[in-house]
Amino acid sequence: MTIKAYGAQAGDQPLEAMDITRRSPGEHDVQIDIAYCGVCHSDLHQVRSEWAGTLYPCVPGHEIVGRVSAVGAHVSTLRVGDLVGVGCIVDSCQHCAECDEGLENYCDHMVGTYNGPTEDAPGHTLGGYSQQIVVHERYVLHIRHPESQLAAVAPLLCAGITTYSPLRHWKVGPGHKVGVVGIGGLGHMGIKLAHAMGAHVVAFTTSESKRTAAKALGADEVVVSGNAEDMHAHADSFDFILNTVAAPHDLDAYFVLLKRDGTMALVGAPATPHPSPQVFNLIMKRRSLAGSLIGGIPETQEMLDFCAEHGIVADIEMIPADQINQAYERMLKGDVKYRFVIDNATLKS
Amino acid sequence: MTIKAYGAQAGDQPLEAMDITRRSPGEHDVQIDIAYCGVCHSDLHQVRSEWAGTLYPCVPGHEIVGRVSAVGAHVSTLRVGDLVGVGCIVDSCQHCAECDEGLENYCDHMVGTYNGPTEDAPGHTLGGYSQQIVVHERYVLHIRHPESQLAAVAPLLCAGITTYSPLRHWKVGPGHKVGVVGIGGLGHMGIKLAHAMGAHVVAFTTSESKRTAAKALGADEVVVSGNAEDMHAHADSFDFILNTVAAPHDLDAYFVLLKRDGTMALVGAPATPHPSPQVFNLIMKRRSLAGSLIGGIPETQEMLDFCAEHGIVADIEMIPADQINQAYERMLKGDVKYRFVIDNATLKS
Repeated sequence: MTIKAYGAQAGDQPLEAMDITRRSPGEHDVQIDIAYCGVCHSDLHQVRSEWAGTLYPCVPGHEIVGRVSAVGAHVSTLRVGDLVGVGCIVDSCQHCAECDEGLENYCDHMVGTYNGPTEDAPGHTLGGYSQQIVVHERYVLHIRHPESQLAAVAPLLCAGITTYSPLRHWKVGPGHKVGVVGIGGLGHMGIKLAHAMGAHVVAFTTSESKRTAAKALGADEVVVSGNAEDMHAHADSFDFILNTVAAPHDLDAYFVLLKRDGTMALVGAPATPHPSPQVFNLIMKRRSLAGSLIGGIPETQEMLDFCAEHGIVADIEMIPADQINQAYERMLKGDVKYRFVIDNATLKS
Repeated sequence: MTIKAYGAQAGDQPLEAMDITRRSPGEHDVQIDIAYCGVCHSDLHQVRSEWAGTLYPCVPGHEIVGRVSAVGAHVSTLRVGDLVGVGCIVDSCQHCAECDEGLENYCDHMVGTYNGPTEDAPGHTLGGYSQQIVVHERYVLHIRHPESQLAAVAPLLCAGITTYSPLRHWKVGPGHKVGVVGIGGLGHMGIKLAHAMGAHVVAFTTSESKRTAAKALGADEVVVSGNAEDMHAHADSFDFILNTVAAPHDLDAYFVLLKRDGTMALVGAPATPHPSPQVFNLIMKRRSLAGSLIGGIPETQEMLDFCAEHGIVADIEMIPADQINQAYERMLKGDVKYRFVIDNATLKS
């Protein structure tokens, strides 16, 4: 089936309208009419070939929400008309220890929603900047939010689970003091989620101008990271810090804010390394530096249900598909609160 | 009371015989006639003022074993004649969360066995390169090894607990694959302890010449870290890596050997930072980099009892006190298997 999409023919080309094909649903497949697709910074990196190995044409998009329009014969848990989502993962080996534990995100053969290996044309996966997608039922999530919130649910599929998973893995909850570094697409979800989990949330930002917005998102306190005195006042006090900033920065400034046995988890990988952290700051309080990558499918469903229950969605700015190149430029300047979402209905014309 | 000791009058002076004084035992104090004292690399750093803040005269030594020669009126668990040990800690605040949990090593007011603050002359603590020491009972450990092993027990008080504590904290046991990086004073204990805990132990060394020795210590496998093919064969396979190497080195080479959710714990802090680790290697498998500092008093006792039960002691080379300067030079060259221990009886002359 040929459908409309938006993508790039090369790393130095802007995104443009294009036709792509999708396979007919197999026995375990779900065909989804995409209503909205969030715009992740990874989309920009991939489409511009800033990471190794981008295949063209490249159609980004892994924050996909829409409605089931067809299901394969063996699909049992989803029906035509259901509101569903697809995140960063559309396939995995399905038999390794990671897949068995529902941690498909750590499967060595995890297939990304775009630029991943597939037998479908053109030989690599094409993402959610498109009218439709066909995905194995295992990787399709139920959405239990009201339909009116559907566009704002889209970013939960990447920004939501990327922050939810480490908060859960490191057991954030009531009585915990949690830091969220960076108030962007990921960070704004981290603040909302940690707050909903009952933690005392401190947002760290480089910009005094974000103070009011961070509080509105659910931060109990806001610290401007350049203010040494304010930073020092929080020394040795955090159970957990979720660091969403991918740009290289001084990690030591945050290590010293962790309690004994505290962990700082990074969810962004900088293009060039952070300044090397002082091992001393880890040793003196048995602190840890960790990384976390999106989340598995069961946990993504758990996150969506948690968000539906707590009324959590992303703060978004909706755009038509033909504004995506301008949106990328604004995203690079941090000029978005906090996530662009494409209205995929605009692909029709 | 004036006793004989060995120490330095300045950072650029060799160690020499000197007289020091010890307080009379208070109500909760234990006076110990020191039989042996292990020689830790920290001793050398401190006495040569390679770390900030060395106070002189400096008498190093925090791997102390001996016999109780007097006890204060309120000391209930130790008697004159008992075999005892003192490690890196001789005091702490005794009322913070860390002290309450028996993690005096992480107390902000932990007092080191040498160079720590004290009301005793000369205003800073003096360590185990001396005939006698007086320590609050809380920080005195029972030794249940046979007396014939006493000298080889001494290094357990620092090298033993520094490796035991992270192995226990990260729950090393049967079925686990554990790496030990570096086969020196700390690493040789790490191998013995991880082996005794039932783990499959892989020793990493830069030197092919240490292969046989590492196996004799209990390593199931030995990998020469410069051999890329041998390293790669262990990719994604370790539950835990104990890294005892303080010299700056490539941490990424070890991160990639950890399984999903694996941790590498550093127990040495380099004078200049390690090359900055690749965050990507942490994120892709939710791996952690952690630090660990010696251990608390209850865990040190647990370690000593574990070692007594399993017949574990350090491999040592005994020296008279007046050979300490030469021993330091050999230690700098790695020319010791694996720990020098001073025979404190040689201080008498």
